[in-house]
Amino acid sequence: MAATGAGSERDGERAKARILDSAEELFYARGVQAVGMDAVRSAAGVSLKRLYQLFPAKERLVEEFLRRRDHAWRDALVRYADARPTPRARLLAVFDWLYQWFAEPDFRGCVFINCFGELGGTSQPVAKAARDHKEAVRAYLGELTTATGVAAPQQLASQLALLAEGAITTAALSGSADSAREGRVAAEVLLNAAGVREQGAAHCND
Amino acid sequence: MAATGAGSERDGERAKARILDSAEELFYARGVQAVGMDAVRSAAGVSLKRLYQLFPAKERLVEEFLRRRDHAWRDALVRYADARPTPRARLLAVFDWLYQWFAEPDFRGCVFINCFGELGGTSQPVAKAARDHKEAVRAYLGELTTATGVAAPQQLASQLALLAEGAITTAALSGSADSAREGRVAAEVLLNAAGVREQGAAHCND
Repeated sequence: MAATGAGSERDGERAKARILDSAEELFYARGVQAVGMDAVRSAAGVSLKRLYQLFPAKERLVEEFLRRRDHAWRDALVRYADARPTPRARLLAVFDWLYQWFAEPDFRGCVFINCFGELGGTSQPVAKAARDHKEAVRAYLGELTTATGVAAPQQLASQLALLAEGAITTAALSGSADSAREGRVAAEVLLNAAGVREQGAAHCND
Repeated sequence: MAATGAGSERDGERAKARILDSAEELFYARGVQAVGMDAVRSAAGVSLKRLYQLFPAKERLVEEFLRRRDHAWRDALVRYADARPTPRARLLAVFDWLYQWFAEPDFRGCVFINCFGELGGTSQPVAKAARDHKEAVRAYLGELTTATGVAAPQQLASQLALLAEGAITTAALSGSADSAREGRVAAEVLLNAAGVREQGAAHCND
């Protein structure tokens, strides 16, 4: 009995993961309200009964896929940026990572902004998931600017966050990845103005 | 007969304006797909038949209110910024204007970004209206940076556009107008770095 219970739990987890994968792909491509639960069911290959057992309301499904996406997105960003040797290089790597993301063929902007635009006015859980994601990204930039030893790290982090945020929206609407490069150049100017120079270049640039 | 025709035309224009006003308010507050044509009809005080005569499809209504909003939004911005004495002051005034907009009680972000996030994947006319709006704003910033006489005005305009864009999204999600102030401070740094100083301050800052 215990073994069967554990097996059912694993089955449940697998079904859940398949549903979240399908929901994420469909909602990101076409918007949340344009996609019915029956389309999610078909894409995930589960019964409608099973789908509603695991996600009693569509809003729960949206909230949960946003939470999962938040973790995956930030993990990928941090892994990419943290591989660079200095805080300055890590901050600029954020824009290199954005560039790669924007260039992906299925890129259609930030799913948190898209869901907030669509449901933020009517769903508190969706609005909160989007807000939490943006705050977590901003906090990561704050860690990196603090590590530079600059005098006003939170102000610098906010400015860099605006550039990154603007780059995401601009890339989505323009269909071009150029905004990541433009954001990177502007970020370099802000870092230089804050006194965060490349290592060994302080005297050359002064 | 001619007088009646002109009267009907005026009636049609008035009904159209009422419908667009109602659609804009409802869609902005709650998203497009959450609001049915019957809700627009009730808010505008017209018959459903009249509504569909004037806007045969909801997509047309969305496209038309976005086009109208684009003109009104940019007119207000340009009127505000152009009242300042110098190109530098006009560029910074953009962020002051954003601050006032963000502080409005019914502010819920950029309706073009919201509609793009919701319908950009499924409606070409909506995606194009959003893109055209952003390009027109970017072109205005390009005019202002060109007027500063700076060496690379389009690059500077793109950077300032990213800050403004990021400020809008951040204000919507955070529910705070602070991002306009942060964007303004960053814009000053970028203008200074590009050599666009306040009049009479060139020598003091060098």
